[in-house]
Amino acid sequence: MSKWVYLFSAGKTEGTRDMKDLLGGKGANLAEMTSRGLNVPPGFTVTTQACLDYEKSGKKINDEIKSQVKSALAEVEKITNKKFGDQTDPLLFSVRSGARASMPGMMDTVLNLGLNEQTVEGMAKLTGNPRFAWDSYRRFIQMYANVVMGFNISLLESTLEDLKEHVGVHEDTELSAEDLKELSQVYKEIILQESGKVFPNDPVEQLWQSIAAVFRSWNNPRAIKYREINEIPHNWGTAVNVQSMVFGNMGDTCATGVCFTRDPSTGVKRFFGEYLINAQGEDVVAGIRTPAPINNDSKNESNKSMATLEELMPRAFKELVDVYTKLENHYKDMQDIEFTIENDQLFILQTRNGKRTAAAAIKIATDLVVEGILTKDEALMRVKPDDLNQLLHPTLDPQAERKMITTGLPASPGAASGEIVFTSERATELAALGHKVLLVRLETSPEDIAGMVAAQGILTARGGMTSHAAVVARGMGKPCVAGCSSAEVSHSKATLTIAGKIYKEGDFLTLDGGTGEVFEGEVPTKSAEISDDFAKFMSWADARRTLRVRTNADNPRDSKVAVRFGAEGIGLCRAENMFFEPERIMIVREMIFADGTAARKRALDKLLPYQKQDFIDIFKALDGMPVNIRLLDPPLHEFLPHSQDDRVALANHIGVELSVITERAEKLHEFNPMLGHRGCRLGVTYPEIYEMQVQAIVEAGIEAASAGVSVNPEIMIPLIATASELEFLSQRLHAHIDKILQKSGKKFDYKMGTMIELPRAAITAAEIAPHAQFFSFGTNDLTQTTFGLSRDDAGKFLGDYVSKGILPKDPFVSLDQSGVGFLVEHAVKEGRRTNPKIHFGICGEHGGDPASVHFCHKIGLDYVSCSPFRVPIARLAAAQAAITHD
Amino acid sequence: MSKWVYLFSAGKTEGTRDMKDLLGGKGANLAEMTSRGLNVPPGFTVTTQACLDYEKSGKKINDEIKSQVKSALAEVEKITNKKFGDQTDPLLFSVRSGARASMPGMMDTVLNLGLNEQTVEGMAKLTGNPRFAWDSYRRFIQMYANVVMGFNISLLESTLEDLKEHVGVHEDTELSAEDLKELSQVYKEIILQESGKVFPNDPVEQLWQSIAAVFRSWNNPRAIKYREINEIPHNWGTAVNVQSMVFGNMGDTCATGVCFTRDPSTGVKRFFGEYLINAQGEDVVAGIRTPAPINNDSKNESNKSMATLEELMPRAFKELVDVYTKLENHYKDMQDIEFTIENDQLFILQTRNGKRTAAAAIKIATDLVVEGILTKDEALMRVKPDDLNQLLHPTLDPQAERKMITTGLPASPGAASGEIVFTSERATELAALGHKVLLVRLETSPEDIAGMVAAQGILTARGGMTSHAAVVARGMGKPCVAGCSSAEVSHSKATLTIAGKIYKEGDFLTLDGGTGEVFEGEVPTKSAEISDDFAKFMSWADARRTLRVRTNADNPRDSKVAVRFGAEGIGLCRAENMFFEPERIMIVREMIFADGTAARKRALDKLLPYQKQDFIDIFKALDGMPVNIRLLDPPLHEFLPHSQDDRVALANHIGVELSVITERAEKLHEFNPMLGHRGCRLGVTYPEIYEMQVQAIVEAGIEAASAGVSVNPEIMIPLIATASELEFLSQRLHAHIDKILQKSGKKFDYKMGTMIELPRAAITAAEIAPHAQFFSFGTNDLTQTTFGLSRDDAGKFLGDYVSKGILPKDPFVSLDQSGVGFLVEHAVKEGRRTNPKIHFGICGEHGGDPASVHFCHKIGLDYVSCSPFRVPIARLAAAQAAITHD
Repeated sequence: MSKWVYLFSAGKTEGTRDMKDLLGGKGANLAEMTSRGLNVPPGFTVTTQACLDYEKSGKKINDEIKSQVKSALAEVEKITNKKFGDQTDPLLFSVRSGARASMPGMMDTVLNLGLNEQTVEGMAKLTGNPRFAWDSYRRFIQMYANVVMGFNISLLESTLEDLKEHVGVHEDTELSAEDLKELSQVYKEIILQESGKVFPNDPVEQLWQSIAAVFRSWNNPRAIKYREINEIPHNWGTAVNVQSMVFGNMGDTCATGVCFTRDPSTGVKRFFGEYLINAQGEDVVAGIRTPAPINNDSKNESNKSMATLEELMPRAFKELVDVYTKLENHYKDMQDIEFTIENDQLFILQTRNGKRTAAAAIKIATDLVVEGILTKDEALMRVKPDDLNQLLHPTLDPQAERKMITTGLPASPGAASGEIVFTSERATELAALGHKVLLVRLETSPEDIAGMVAAQGILTARGGMTSHAAVVARGMGKPCVAGCSSAEVSHSKATLTIAGKIYKEGDFLTLDGGTGEVFEGEVPTKSAEISDDFAKFMSWADARRTLRVRTNADNPRDSKVAVRFGAEGIGLCRAENMFFEPERIMIVREMIFADGTAARKRALDKLLPYQKQDFIDIFKALDGMPVNIRLLDPPLHEFLPHSQDDRVALANHIGVELSVITERAEKLHEFNPMLGHRGCRLGVTYPEIYEMQVQAIVEAGIEAASAGVSVNPEIMIPLIATASELEFLSQRLHAHIDKILQKSGKKFDYKMGTMIELPRAAITAAEIAPHAQFFSFGTNDLTQTTFGLSRDDAGKFLGDYVSKGILPKDPFVSLDQSGVGFLVEHAVKEGRRTNPKIHFGICGEHGGDPASVHFCHKIGLDYVSCSPFRVPIARLAAAQAAITHD
Repeated sequence: MSKWVYLFSAGKTEGTRDMKDLLGGKGANLAEMTSRGLNVPPGFTVTTQACLDYEKSGKKINDEIKSQVKSALAEVEKITNKKFGDQTDPLLFSVRSGARASMPGMMDTVLNLGLNEQTVEGMAKLTGNPRFAWDSYRRFIQMYANVVMGFNISLLESTLEDLKEHVGVHEDTELSAEDLKELSQVYKEIILQESGKVFPNDPVEQLWQSIAAVFRSWNNPRAIKYREINEIPHNWGTAVNVQSMVFGNMGDTCATGVCFTRDPSTGVKRFFGEYLINAQGEDVVAGIRTPAPINNDSKNESNKSMATLEELMPRAFKELVDVYTKLENHYKDMQDIEFTIENDQLFILQTRNGKRTAAAAIKIATDLVVEGILTKDEALMRVKPDDLNQLLHPTLDPQAERKMITTGLPASPGAASGEIVFTSERATELAALGHKVLLVRLETSPEDIAGMVAAQGILTARGGMTSHAAVVARGMGKPCVAGCSSAEVSHSKATLTIAGKIYKEGDFLTLDGGTGEVFEGEVPTKSAEISDDFAKFMSWADARRTLRVRTNADNPRDSKVAVRFGAEGIGLCRAENMFFEPERIMIVREMIFADGTAARKRALDKLLPYQKQDFIDIFKALDGMPVNIRLLDPPLHEFLPHSQDDRVALANHIGVELSVITERAEKLHEFNPMLGHRGCRLGVTYPEIYEMQVQAIVEAGIEAASAGVSVNPEIMIPLIATASELEFLSQRLHAHIDKILQKSGKKFDYKMGTMIELPRAAITAAEIAPHAQFFSFGTNDLTQTTFGLSRDDAGKFLGDYVSKGILPKDPFVSLDQSGVGFLVEHAVKEGRRTNPKIHFGICGEHGGDPASVHFCHKIGLDYVSCSPFRVPIARLAAAQAAITHD
């Protein structure tokens, strides 16, 4: 018999913190906290395995699970001394999802389960608070109808609004017990009428249905979307936590709140949180009411006048401080704690490692090392390399003029400008067209995820620092200003009104998520400041890693940015990218349309000084660090004039008929240019092109060196498929360079090697390696050919593949280790066998992907190379790889 | 010190028949014959290594070689008791090329070397035949000027013609000694005038220059072309045979000839040859005079009235019969022997395994088994599988009406029709445009090779059965009628006149190379008759091979042809190729342009009956043999309407605006369709397409089975990159088939498997194999992705690659064993490891390439599959592989 259900209740707890895979993060922590003597409402966890079993058995909860749930229920009844469904003192439950990884708000929750027409009366009598009882029942119906029955609750919400209007009140809390009792009846009638289903009165039926609904919510669209964004496997399933209810909404001696043991935005060590008097937990998270600060440290512009929990309930607050210290020391990490105070008694409902910004993550990790709680290695493992992304992007230029129009909560740091839009759909649409947009919402909900991904930043009128918008934006590293209460958002009119001025879709605003300020128009931004903590943290990473990190940079500007971010050289300089600059493209076209070798050489002679100057500038920027320059790679037709005007201009420039241009362009057309006449194949058929390029490199190197710059070039021949190609070309290029050097009488050191980007090159690496001083793995192209998948065309179906679970990840983002990785590993092994001195790097986009960096470390590459902004990510990932694998 | 020169002369021979690599075929055989006591004029061979050294040292003959040549020369002077350059009894030499493999006529030869103004007088006195001496000198000047000095000899030839006219004679032989002496002076003057070079008088200079010229001729364009066609490596080099001259042209007791120990056209065991009285060997080969038959067996229509060698020189003939028997028994193969009779004394100048038609090769091999000379295995190794090609092509339909206009020699069997053309260039041009052409020439020369490749057949007015045209055409398996003396060919007017009727370029003729007949217009042809010898030979091959041979056939017609050729099943039926038939393509387009799944299904429902009927017919043709059907593979846009008319028709057909068609077509455009939305990717996104196809297969199978046909289908899912794709699709298709079977209440056996055509599939074969009952290697696509080489685009540079020696062979023709082969072998090993029951085949074009078949045998595939006409080739190659490797 499998064990499907684990109790958590003082003295009878069956789970531990290590059982996250089975109990989910929430369940494991509930067990852990209960074991440690914290005041956690007792309950039980139905395992993630039960969820998978439910899906596998055609959405049925099997009898074994049912029987174990019944036993656990009986146990909880014994401990609480209450009965589920009892008419005088009913036991009520919350039913919550809880996956292995935190997926805040993505799956479903049902509160107050066990209430029905009989038990609600019992609650009313027992608490002497019929208003509370009926409000709880009303909420339960609404939540259950939504979550379990899939009922569209806008009908219920509008009935509530009608009732308030009818009674003449503004707030839900002003409705009387009688109003709410009547409302619950109306709710049930509407549900019956609209769905044809009777709202269930039997608590046991409610329980089974709710557990099943939570299981099903694992596969709701927004959860799937969230898992895709956060790379969480679809086959984990969620656990279900059935926990006895405590009530933060039984009156003014009750409260509910969320707190962090350190500031999740900055990482500063201060206890920090929000709470609501007389409310249930959902009210804080949903951001419907603006919550109050738990202490002075938690005050901000919009809540500074509200009373703190410390002031109102000092005993419970003191207890909470005790709890948080205990929990942080126990978990050795910043905790995000949910609590409820029922009649002055503190209950801990949940603790977890708190989500944080990247800056906070670094601050917390470095502080914990200083505090002696973590080792440096542990600290390095605490920061997700990808999260550094958000530290490296621009902030507002402090010198720039700006017109601030309002402020909200500084919910997620960073600066962003864009056209405002009012729906997630519109955000996605416009972003797809290349617009920069800001998503403006009254408040966000999990349905808005796609729009938030598409937007540059998020502005909400409601909600606090722990609202949905704030939490999700921080996770994404997107700027967010939340709870901007002076802003009026009308979704129906699609307007944002601030201080009487109306902003419509398409108007530009700028947000500063670090200050909560909102500006009119586009405010210029400046590069990210690198904090001392960040520098310290990265220096630990650099000391720990063995893999070197280079950058892919095609021009002096990008090279400089990358060096500032810690790049140790250029892993890929695509020499031809400089061909596209306006004054050069005409010469490039002249070269392509040249009639014979002599004419082609004349055009190349004109290009030479440009290429040479580029290389001089890059050598200067890198001063002694290796610079890997790839010779011409793309098919020539990429450089062709596409518009009629460009064709006419070219015809005039080289003095031929337009028809000559058209004809030649047609001749250059290829069915599959990716597999066509490109790379070293051009070098074989037009040797003069590569000769010009190496001449530019050599002459630039000599000139830079004579100006005192240290020069370390690597010449890379692309798209090699056979050893004989490389032998043929490298012999000729070495000879050409010798001739140049002989003429100049100078000496010049350089390396020559090749890009391994075709399966055949990887397979026959042993034959190729003796002709190369280095291999650089071009894993973008290698992925294309290994998968037979064109990056330009894959968009049509790759999404389908990932969402249907056929591919775990986009192989262009994260290196496919069993396919492409096999070839890379094979080439390293075979290449080293026949040329022990050869060195290895990777220059595909994968060089900046942490999982791929781990792989590169494991198979013994010398360096990875990635885009400038990903250099710090690769540095940290390389350190983590060394910690993990060595 | 290396040995660069090998003597052959009675008692002093340094080479043996096993030294072909070093001495070339001719040199090795000269050594062998000399050792065996045959009367071979003494001489020496300069090795192939010397040729390579000559190229490597910048076209210089090194001093070591020169000194060894001088020693060998002295030795030959001693044996012959003559002196090179002696003014009274000069030693003369022939200087001939001789590569490892026979390349008839491709490289250069110089005869009569050693003649000059002084020695020619000595020769005249010594022989008492000044006409002979001056004719020899005149010939030498002409040959040397052409071969060594690169002089355009048409000027010399026209001078000869002018002289004949002036003197009033028709034949060269009618010119007097004085005429020829004067001619030699005029020749030398013309050469000086036109080239500015003095014709060398020093025999030693003549020798070095001639040896160097032969070395260089290894890399003349026609030799390179010949090697490409015959897959001879470019790095072998040629040896040079320097042999003392004997003279067939010293008078009427002299002759020269070529003979075969068996008939090279039919293989029949009869001694067979041609000779010319008072001539040099070149005269026979060049086909300038029509030669006489050596015996009655060698008579044909055009030479039956001429005296035979047997009649004219019975003693020499008897000796020749002795020699040929000795040589055939020694070499155990049909020999091609060159001989010269000098004053009634027989000299053997060369012997080699004779070139032969495929029919003759089979006849000779089977006869030699019957005669007890060869084992069956030896016989099977004697026929080049590719040569079977010529046996399998059509002959003239005996029932068809025809108008014979003339006959020539039946020089190379087979029937061909086409538009006549008069130059090699024109043949190449028109063939490239898709025309079928016949090349008509007065006689052919090695310069015509390209045109002969391009033509369907060859017709010449001059030359015998061993003329250039005849030998080369037989090698190519092209029909050829040679020596058609009643035909007048004017190259300048580009006309062919037969019996007064003038035929011009573009007029159709038909040749029967088996009978020598020429017909007006296009005569219908019929399929090749399979001879008893062929059947016997192939039955030995079938008994010997372990690899099975299937065919690639998309329709019942091709299937039937293949079965007749011995196919044991279909290895690849591209189900979608049937989509292109006129009545279907509109439905296919309707399917592609369908707006949503329902509309797509409606179109597919209309396609279903067509697909089903195709499969029924194919099952019937194969009756029980396996039929491997590949589901839809190419990108959908291949089926799009390309012309405006087609688009309008489609818009009307499905009732939408033309713009809808245009838009959808644009949306379907892909940058690299080969790497795009195709193969199983279509199956994932549009499951209904594959469902229709499997339904057609299953229903066809059931229907055929109920008609008593045995059915053995294999369903193949193409373009799998990951195991999960195959798992996803095969599960769904199995389920779909189960549903169909459940409904029909019938049982149906089938296999399901996949095509391995992407590197990733091969690499991860261990993961894929458990989901497949078979792997079929699609080596065409696998070659494309492994090399990163589009078959459609590679034409622009692949030729360059092969000719520059960067690629040894076109990898689309012969499997690249170290790259693509590595993947295939890896997949076989890994696939078998995780699924021991799986079976393996190959279905790329390589399945019909003998070298690739060897590879497939070696790595343990179960079958190869190739186009119908290559099935016998694959069967023989498979037998040879078994003999070689087991």
